[in-house]
Amino acid sequence: MKKIAVIGFGVVGGGVVSLTDENAAMIREASGDDVYVKYILDLRDFPDSPYADRVIHDVNIIINDPEIDLVVETMGGVNPALAFSSAALKAGKHVVTSNKELVAKHGEELMRLADENGVAYLYEASVGGGIPLIRSIRTSLASDTVTAVRGILNGTTNYILTRMRDGGISFEEALAEAQQLGYAEKDPSADIHGFDAQRKIMILTAVATGVIVNEADVYTETMSKLTTADIDAAKRLGGAVRLIGSFVREGDGVSVSVCPRIVDGKNPLAHVDDVYNAVSAVTSLTGDVMYYGRGAGRYPTAGAVISDVTAALSGAYKTESNRTWKKAPAGFVRPFAESKNRMYIRVSDASVQEVMDAARLLFGDVTEVPGTPAGVAEFVTPILAEEAAAKAIAALPGTVESVLRLL
Amino acid sequence: MKKIAVIGFGVVGGGVVSLTDENAAMIREASGDDVYVKYILDLRDFPDSPYADRVIHDVNIIINDPEIDLVVETMGGVNPALAFSSAALKAGKHVVTSNKELVAKHGEELMRLADENGVAYLYEASVGGGIPLIRSIRTSLASDTVTAVRGILNGTTNYILTRMRDGGISFEEALAEAQQLGYAEKDPSADIHGFDAQRKIMILTAVATGVIVNEADVYTETMSKLTTADIDAAKRLGGAVRLIGSFVREGDGVSVSVCPRIVDGKNPLAHVDDVYNAVSAVTSLTGDVMYYGRGAGRYPTAGAVISDVTAALSGAYKTESNRTWKKAPAGFVRPFAESKNRMYIRVSDASVQEVMDAARLLFGDVTEVPGTPAGVAEFVTPILAEEAAAKAIAALPGTVESVLRLL
Repeated sequence: MKKIAVIGFGVVGGGVVSLTDENAAMIREASGDDVYVKYILDLRDFPDSPYADRVIHDVNIIINDPEIDLVVETMGGVNPALAFSSAALKAGKHVVTSNKELVAKHGEELMRLADENGVAYLYEASVGGGIPLIRSIRTSLASDTVTAVRGILNGTTNYILTRMRDGGISFEEALAEAQQLGYAEKDPSADIHGFDAQRKIMILTAVATGVIVNEADVYTETMSKLTTADIDAAKRLGGAVRLIGSFVREGDGVSVSVCPRIVDGKNPLAHVDDVYNAVSAVTSLTGDVMYYGRGAGRYPTAGAVISDVTAALSGAYKTESNRTWKKAPAGFVRPFAESKNRMYIRVSDASVQEVMDAARLLFGDVTEVPGTPAGVAEFVTPILAEEAAAKAIAALPGTVESVLRLL
Repeated sequence: MKKIAVIGFGVVGGGVVSLTDENAAMIREASGDDVYVKYILDLRDFPDSPYADRVIHDVNIIINDPEIDLVVETMGGVNPALAFSSAALKAGKHVVTSNKELVAKHGEELMRLADENGVAYLYEASVGGGIPLIRSIRTSLASDTVTAVRGILNGTTNYILTRMRDGGISFEEALAEAQQLGYAEKDPSADIHGFDAQRKIMILTAVATGVIVNEADVYTETMSKLTTADIDAAKRLGGAVRLIGSFVREGDGVSVSVCPRIVDGKNPLAHVDDVYNAVSAVTSLTGDVMYYGRGAGRYPTAGAVISDVTAALSGAYKTESNRTWKKAPAGFVRPFAESKNRMYIRVSDASVQEVMDAARLLFGDVTEVPGTPAGVAEFVTPILAEEAAAKAIAALPGTVESVLRLL
C-alpha cells in the first residue's frame, strides 16, 4: 500500500481525498498498488468530516514520515506551498500540485529538485482543470514539435464574454452575474486582468518547449474594458471575442501573450461558450489538435490530481518529456512590439469618410465591418507589427474607441 | 540502437519511414534509444526511393531477425496483416498499427498474444489520425470512468456534409467534389455507409470499457440518403447534420451506434467542419472533454504511429489501462430498438394540419421546426424509444420523407 498526504483541505483537496476512497479500485489498477490518504494538513480542524482523525497541523509529521510516498499540494499561493513542496521533494517524496501560481513562478526549481531526488513533480491540474492537456502534450506529442498553443484558459472570463454576447449586457453586469453564480471571486482581478491565464500560458509554453518564461515578458491585457459595442462588432464580423492566451515559436524563441481577441467563426475556439476552456495546439506533424472541457471545478480538478498521483506512483511519469524546465535565456521571448496581428479599430467623433480615408492611407488595404452603426467608423487592418500599428492609430482623426486584435 | 521494420510502404508507412529519419533526435529522447528502420516490406520495389536498399518481399526475414524489436504494420485490411502481426508478436516483437479494420476485428486476440509474449500491440493511429485520443483515454483518464463517447470519426463524410450545407449542393455533387479532391475514394462505401466510423467507435468503446463488441451489434446507418432538405432543416433548428459514432454505458452494458444526427448548435460537434474529426468523451469525474483535429493524412497518422513506437520501446505502454480486451458477453450491447432519441420527422403528401394533429396524438409534445417550407410538415419528437417511434411513424398520414435523430 502507498500512503500519501494531502496539503490543503479545500475544494480541490477535499475532492482528492474523497475520490481516493471512491475510486480505490481504478486507482489501484492505474498506480499498481492501493493508495491511502494518511494525513490531511490544514490550519483548520474538520470535526464533522469523516476524515477528521487524519487532519494534522504540522507539516513536519508528513516530511519526517518515511511511509509517505507522495504529497498532494492543493493549497494555492506561493507561501508556504513552496517551502512545503521543497521539503517534501528533498525528503524523496513525489509532489503533485494544482497550484498554477507556484508552478509558473517556481516550477523550474521544484522540477530540478524532484529530478535530483529521483521523484516526480507533476502539475496536470494546474491548467485546464479536467482536460488532460499537459499529459497529452508530454506523452502523445513527445515525438512531435508543438509550434503554437492558443487557448481559452480562464472559465470566468469566458462566461462573462458569453453572457455579454447572449444577454446583450455590459461587462459589469455580466461580472456581477458570474459572482452571484460563484463563477467569479469577490476580487476578480486575477481572472479579468488576465493574470490567471498568464500563469497558464507560461506553464503550457514550458510544457511544449522545456523553457519557462518570466511573467514580466508575457504581454497581458485586461478584458475589463470590453464594451457591448466590441462584442457586437465581433458578431458582425462572424466571430466572437475571447480572452486568448497564446504562445507561438518564432525562430529560436517564442512570442507569448494574453489579450482579448476577435476569433473568427471558422475557428472552433469561437464556439467555446460559458465556463468551458479549450486549447488548440499546433504541431509540426499532426497539424492542429484542440482540447475542450471544463477548466475548473472540484471533481475535474481533483480527477486531474489523481491522474498525476497514479502517474507518479506507477513510474509512468519517467517517460514523459520536459521533466525539467530551463529558465528562459535573454531574448527568448520576442518583444510584443514586434508581434504581428490584424486589428479591429473603432473610431467616433469624426466623419466616417474622413476616418476611412485616413485608415486607408495609414494602414493600407483595410476591410470594412458589415453593419457598422451610424456615427462611428469601423475597419479591420491588414497584418501589422504592434509598433507600426500603434503609430498609425495615434495618427487617426477622431476618438479611437476600441482596438482589438484578431486571431 | 533499436531496429524496427515497416510492413506496407504506402502513404502512412512511407510517412513513418521518413519521420523516423527527420525526427531522430526527438524519437531518441522519447524512446530512450536511437531508432532505425532496418526493413521495409512491400510487394512492390521502389528503385527511386532513398530507402530502396531496405525494401524486402519476404516477411520471414523480419520475423526471424532477432535484431528487430518492433514491427509497424501499415498495410490495412485483415489479410495478410493478421498473419504477419501474429507472427511478429509470437516472435516477441512489439507491433504498432494504423489498421482500424484489423484492430476492430482481431484486436482482442492480438492484444492477448502481445500480453502473453511480454510485448505491446498499439493502435493510436487507427482512430482519429493525429489526435492523441486513445493514449489520452488510456493514461490521463485511467483513474476515471468514461461513460460515453460521441464523435465525428470520418473526415470524408464530414467534408460532404459541410459542402452540402455551405454550397447548398446535393449529396451526389458533394461526394463527386470530395472524390476530385482526393478526400473520398473511388469506391466510397466504407465511408458513406458508416463502416469506417463503425470500426472506430468499436475501438473507442473497447479503449474505454475493455470490451470489444461485435460489428453486427453496432447499429450503423448510411448517410447517403441525406438531402438538402435535411441539411436545411438542421440549419433552421440552429444546428448541423453530422455522422455521429457513439457509445453510451447503460447499466452493465453499452449502447453503440453510427448514424447521421442533427447536432444542436450549442454542442461544439456542430461546428466541426470539413475533414476534421472530433470526439467528445464524457467521464464521471471530469465531465465532458472534447478532442479535435485532423483525422487522417500522411503525417498526422504517421505521427500517431511514431508516438506508439516510442511508447512501446520506452516501456511507457505498460502503465496504460485496458492493455487487453475481452469479447463482449451476450447482452452487453443493448438492442438498438430500446435506445431512446429525440427525432426530427418530415412529412409530405398530406395537409400540414392533419400531420401535426396526428403527430401530437402519436408522439405527445412535439416541437415545430421554424421556417418549414410550404407543402411539408416538420416536427421534433420528445425522447422516445426506437421501437415506439417506428410504430408511431408508420401510423403518420402522408409520405414520411425523412427521420433524423437528434444528438
